[in-house]
Amino acid sequence: MGKQIRIGIVGYGNLGRGVEAAIKQNSDMELVAVFSRRSPESVNVIDKNVKVIHISEAERYQADIDVMILCGGSARDLPEQGPAFARLFNTVDSFDTHAKIPAYYELVNEVANMSGKTSIISVGWDPGLFSINRMMSASILPKGETYTFWGKGLSQGHSDAIRRVEGVKGGVQYTIPSETAIDRVRSGENPSLSTSEKHKRECYVVAEEGADKAKIERDIKTMPNYFADYETTVHFITESELKENHSKMPHGGFVIHSGTTGEGNNQIIEFSLKLNSNPEFTASVLTAYARAAYRLNKEGQTGAKTVFDIAPGYLSPKSAADLRRDLL
Amino acid sequence: MGKQIRIGIVGYGNLGRGVEAAIKQNSDMELVAVFSRRSPESVNVIDKNVKVIHISEAERYQADIDVMILCGGSARDLPEQGPAFARLFNTVDSFDTHAKIPAYYELVNEVANMSGKTSIISVGWDPGLFSINRMMSASILPKGETYTFWGKGLSQGHSDAIRRVEGVKGGVQYTIPSETAIDRVRSGENPSLSTSEKHKRECYVVAEEGADKAKIERDIKTMPNYFADYETTVHFITESELKENHSKMPHGGFVIHSGTTGEGNNQIIEFSLKLNSNPEFTASVLTAYARAAYRLNKEGQTGAKTVFDIAPGYLSPKSAADLRRDLL
Repeated sequence: MGKQIRIGIVGYGNLGRGVEAAIKQNSDMELVAVFSRRSPESVNVIDKNVKVIHISEAERYQADIDVMILCGGSARDLPEQGPAFARLFNTVDSFDTHAKIPAYYELVNEVANMSGKTSIISVGWDPGLFSINRMMSASILPKGETYTFWGKGLSQGHSDAIRRVEGVKGGVQYTIPSETAIDRVRSGENPSLSTSEKHKRECYVVAEEGADKAKIERDIKTMPNYFADYETTVHFITESELKENHSKMPHGGFVIHSGTTGEGNNQIIEFSLKLNSNPEFTASVLTAYARAAYRLNKEGQTGAKTVFDIAPGYLSPKSAADLRRDLL
Repeated sequence: MGKQIRIGIVGYGNLGRGVEAAIKQNSDMELVAVFSRRSPESVNVIDKNVKVIHISEAERYQADIDVMILCGGSARDLPEQGPAFARLFNTVDSFDTHAKIPAYYELVNEVANMSGKTSIISVGWDPGLFSINRMMSASILPKGETYTFWGKGLSQGHSDAIRRVEGVKGGVQYTIPSETAIDRVRSGENPSLSTSEKHKRECYVVAEEGADKAKIERDIKTMPNYFADYETTVHFITESELKENHSKMPHGGFVIHSGTTGEGNNQIIEFSLKLNSNPEFTASVLTAYARAAYRLNKEGQTGAKTVFDIAPGYLSPKSAADLRRDLL
């Protein structure tokens, strides 16, 4: 395979930690360093031999790193870090604020074109693998409808909303796709479904001592935007149950495209994910796309790219000839 | 959208007919002509206005056709037609003899490189969409196993085998994926499964009058290679039931990749198809890839390509900016 692809990680939360783990599974890659805004001693990396360096020093590592995987958040980190790092490095990020993707693309594209770097933006599973499936399905079966269901998965925003309710000490919320809705879609019926018809919400709540549980349940179920429009269930649990059974970050979902061809023959394309760790999976997708960024840049394909612009073969460590022989 | 993509169809069986239907669903394409080895009057196209031309005249249509979709079979037609047409046209085909793909690729690639044409080979769902999913999943989760299940679907080879049994007047065979095996894979157990453990075979048989049904059933179930290793069910039906209930060509299947990340977190990626018409679906995939062949050639990307080499965005009639805004 020739030389290793040298990776840097920018930002070390759950996603950055997932990328560190993913790199270990890819023998053509090595992790050069983790870059963080925190003081390096306070960053608790998995492999104690990994260098942790303050983000302000990153510029000095241009010659040592082939691709920087940006693991910051879309709200505050990436709008600044995306363009800043594209000036110096090939990058991959998981920018996921759908409405702002076009503007973010333009920003990063301009910088990467000037610097001669390759930046793959909005990588992960949604946006990412789900987007590829929505787009390819609609292109193959243009007479049809695409449905995206999320879950079963922990929703950070809804969990936060629960914890703001009076009398609540802790809690988590799972978004659960409606089996009835999925079955209707799979049948080829092509129903019209709102987001609230497609999903249920399940809450596991720890109440403060002496709190009015009936009132908590009512406050959650009637909360506008978050719960009022959904079929919502509230379970009260103990603090130790919360810690023991609800500390993982599972997620997943379905993209189902239901189309017709010829004289009304139904054709169903379905893609689904069942993830026991959402951040580790997203990290694994980012890591595979880092390989693509490296190769595209070697070929002179610079600027910003999305998953729509990347031929699948670039994700694999195998040669094109091996892929044709073994996996086609 | 600019000008229409002008398509030609070579070979008019179930697949060619499916392509004719698919082109009607794509407003950026038009069908110029169907080319057949049969006498043009005997080819029964859907739209009577479509020109049917003898295949020997195809060469004269180079200026009128942007992409030829080759709808012949892999055993006898494509090994000859693939290279012959790549000399004159951009092409898309569904060459599906897995073991011979590398040699076929070399053959077509050499011709297409010389002629400056773009030829996308082995397009469809397996090889094709299933290959993309096997390859991407294994690249994203390298620590894992990929499982391919076929069905429920009509198998032409096994149906032929049934019809060769003494006393059988007609019949069809469906390959059915084993639910037990699928559930084991979905659970993340990563079992070792042979093809016969993954699939069951269901036969619908019309017996000749006075034939020994018990013997027919025994002959089928003990037939080596085809049925002996499988859980096989034989149903006897009437000739009219065969015609009425078993004349469609449904198919489908599942690609399930079960991997682990980090400290043993299971992650499952699943892609599945449920097709009421196998040839019409394959035709729809070929038609979307014809758009890619046209565009790649415009960009000067010539030679033979497979689905691994095609960025997903090339399949869509939408612009890259529209895709980023609407589908990412």
